[in-house]
Amino acid sequence: MKLMLARGVKDIMPEEKILQDYLQEKIVKTFQKYGFNPLDTPTFERIEVLSAKFAAGTESDAVKETFKFKDQGERELGLRYDFTVPLARFVGMNPQLKMPFKRYQIGKIYRDGPVTNSRFREFTQCDVDIVGCKGMIADAEILALTSNVFKELGLKVVIKVNNRKLLNELMNQIKLKEELNSSVLTTIDKLEKIGVKEVEKELLEKGLGKEQIKKLLEAIKINSLDCDVFKEIERIGLKGEGVTELKELNDYCKAFKLKDIVIDLSLARGLGYYTGPVFEVFLENGTVKASLAGGGRFDEMIGSFLESKQVIPATGISFGLSVLLTLMKEKEKKTLVDLYVISVGLKEKVLPIIQELRSKGLKVDFDLNFRGISKGLQITNSKGITFALIVGEKELSEGKLKLKDMVSGKEELLDLKEVIERISIKRNLV
Amino acid sequence: MKLMLARGVKDIMPEEKILQDYLQEKIVKTFQKYGFNPLDTPTFERIEVLSAKFAAGTESDAVKETFKFKDQGERELGLRYDFTVPLARFVGMNPQLKMPFKRYQIGKIYRDGPVTNSRFREFTQCDVDIVGCKGMIADAEILALTSNVFKELGLKVVIKVNNRKLLNELMNQIKLKEELNSSVLTTIDKLEKIGVKEVEKELLEKGLGKEQIKKLLEAIKINSLDCDVFKEIERIGLKGEGVTELKELNDYCKAFKLKDIVIDLSLARGLGYYTGPVFEVFLENGTVKASLAGGGRFDEMIGSFLESKQVIPATGISFGLSVLLTLMKEKEKKTLVDLYVISVGLKEKVLPIIQELRSKGLKVDFDLNFRGISKGLQITNSKGITFALIVGEKELSEGKLKLKDMVSGKEELLDLKEVIERISIKRNLV
Repeated sequence: MKLMLARGVKDIMPEEKILQDYLQEKIVKTFQKYGFNPLDTPTFERIEVLSAKFAAGTESDAVKETFKFKDQGERELGLRYDFTVPLARFVGMNPQLKMPFKRYQIGKIYRDGPVTNSRFREFTQCDVDIVGCKGMIADAEILALTSNVFKELGLKVVIKVNNRKLLNELMNQIKLKEELNSSVLTTIDKLEKIGVKEVEKELLEKGLGKEQIKKLLEAIKINSLDCDVFKEIERIGLKGEGVTELKELNDYCKAFKLKDIVIDLSLARGLGYYTGPVFEVFLENGTVKASLAGGGRFDEMIGSFLESKQVIPATGISFGLSVLLTLMKEKEKKTLVDLYVISVGLKEKVLPIIQELRSKGLKVDFDLNFRGISKGLQITNSKGITFALIVGEKELSEGKLKLKDMVSGKEELLDLKEVIERISIKRNLV
Repeated sequence: MKLMLARGVKDIMPEEKILQDYLQEKIVKTFQKYGFNPLDTPTFERIEVLSAKFAAGTESDAVKETFKFKDQGERELGLRYDFTVPLARFVGMNPQLKMPFKRYQIGKIYRDGPVTNSRFREFTQCDVDIVGCKGMIADAEILALTSNVFKELGLKVVIKVNNRKLLNELMNQIKLKEELNSSVLTTIDKLEKIGVKEVEKELLEKGLGKEQIKKLLEAIKINSLDCDVFKEIERIGLKGEGVTELKELNDYCKAFKLKDIVIDLSLARGLGYYTGPVFEVFLENGTVKASLAGGGRFDEMIGSFLESKQVIPATGISFGLSVLLTLMKEKEKKTLVDLYVISVGLKEKVLPIIQELRSKGLKVDFDLNFRGISKGLQITNSKGITFALIVGEKELSEGKLKLKDMVSGKEELLDLKEVIERISIKRNLV
């Protein structure tokens, strides 16, 4: 047998997993500060749920890229390909939930699609959603949280905001044939990536008239970095619920004192189920083009899962861990271990010392093979551990231990209490 | 469409997930104190890996109970049913790993088996293993960690320890036919559950002679709660590598000052791949019979995945989260939220206050629908949040806010700084 991984998945090595856990903890703490509680749904769902109208109908890849299988009872199942469909199913099955319901979910998502260097068949996603509030305050809360997450991660970002209804109003204004709507949205969304010229060309190819294209381009070029958005919107004669919502959302963002919001009328986002505000986050300096998070309002999806077809408004955002991990690569640590204990021939004496250090909260490893000092220092080094503690018979008889800082090379003779202090201080500084 | 979950899986509701995360954090922190780093392997593996000789051969249910499926390229895959097989595959694929390799992995495990009230098709497991150390010090390290985990969780436990080689030596001593070995081990393992009489009956049925049974029972009744184990072992004339290993492990446990270890010669553990020490943890007062954790040494399994068939020793233990969750049910909290902010008609003024509280680390929620004070207090109560903060126009003009402790009913007029202090203190006390 040749040892191989399944195609499109990978092992997350300790150094990468340490960073991922650190990142996740920062994100989760922020979610919690905003009053969200955790929820966990199963890794697999019935295929009927995963392929229900809204779950799939508007996003044909989803069903095609679902890993499908059967259980012993021949029930058809599929691995979840997002957290939104399970959320809709969960809300539908739990009518007792108090609204608004605020939850986050972190876990793996599966897609049986093409594999590239950056596209895997299993990846971790962090979703945060508010269900049951139709007011723009809910979207503002999501944006405040998003801004806070990136501040916490030390990343300068631009949070682009637009509104789907406004885009629909725009397409109505230029009298676009309705069947072209979603195709035109896809093209609009590419403005930043491919530029005005290419967008114009695509729109021509899609059969839009010169005047339609002119008006469309004039509108989607509007963004709050360059101009007073609402003046411009008025100038081009755009009005309706979308404009009102965008204005209201913008006012809430101001009350929340958010500084990284950019209203950008070219932001459309691909997914069919968005019904109001849409958001997408990019690195401010643009060195990485990929979006770091994205979301929006989806007022129709949850209700579509219910027999009553009752409308249950919802809004939320999803953070992609893998891009964030790439950006924070420099924070990668090889190990969590604080201290490597080395001793020669003192097994019974060194174990209680190790236990004492651990009981004080230090992360301590030691040479299980007791191979001596020079081998011990070599291991400490190769494992990337900052401190080595050498336990020698003579020093120990005087109540002392030798602490070596592997970075500076400095050695000190200390008692156990001092060792604990030294490392605790160093750890808090880092 | 009827909204349903797949059979045998469940949603983990916020209150249960909060407790699970709390539990996991305590466990992980202990793993880290013992010098273990995290590893994450994919949710699914190639079916050849999952059904390799050691992965399945000795435990026929494993392959039968694996959820199997194919990817778009018709590759046969399966959901992992434990973390041990992926660990073996990982070690085999990464010859650069520094030995001993200490890692933990926490995640979900899948088994397409019969479903009961306590048996699910998806459940969370926490595994911790040391690969590449053949000395008993590694097993002692695992036991020290195990003891520490339960201390951390506030659970009084008995950690039963035995040795598979010793059991083999015992079966040799009574000249048991080798083909009966594993069947007899299964019976021995039931001693505590079904009692001496029933064990005797089963052994008779399996064709053992009266003298064989007498000697076997005499041996497996030996445990360190009742007698001096090693004296008894000597008395019945049992000797060999298993006895030596058990003695050595016991000495290390003493050096580690472990108090909850019980040597029990009836402990066998079902899995075929154990080769030396075996461990299993039970609640001390016996109110819950289920085992809380179990493991042992498996020196032959990893090597069986390698072309070289090189022996790579390994030992470890696995903690089952669901039993632990049941035991800690009384610690369940409905919400993580510290404070629910209520205001009437002060949207723009209240949002900066909320942001200030959050920036100080408090977990703050508020009524997104601004429905007034009595509705707000009702929500605070039904969500199980301890504090409500009422922002009134008059009080605010004097720089004051009204903090209500929902448990005691006490109300106080405080400034923002005092609010933060009150809640921080309360939170640390809980």
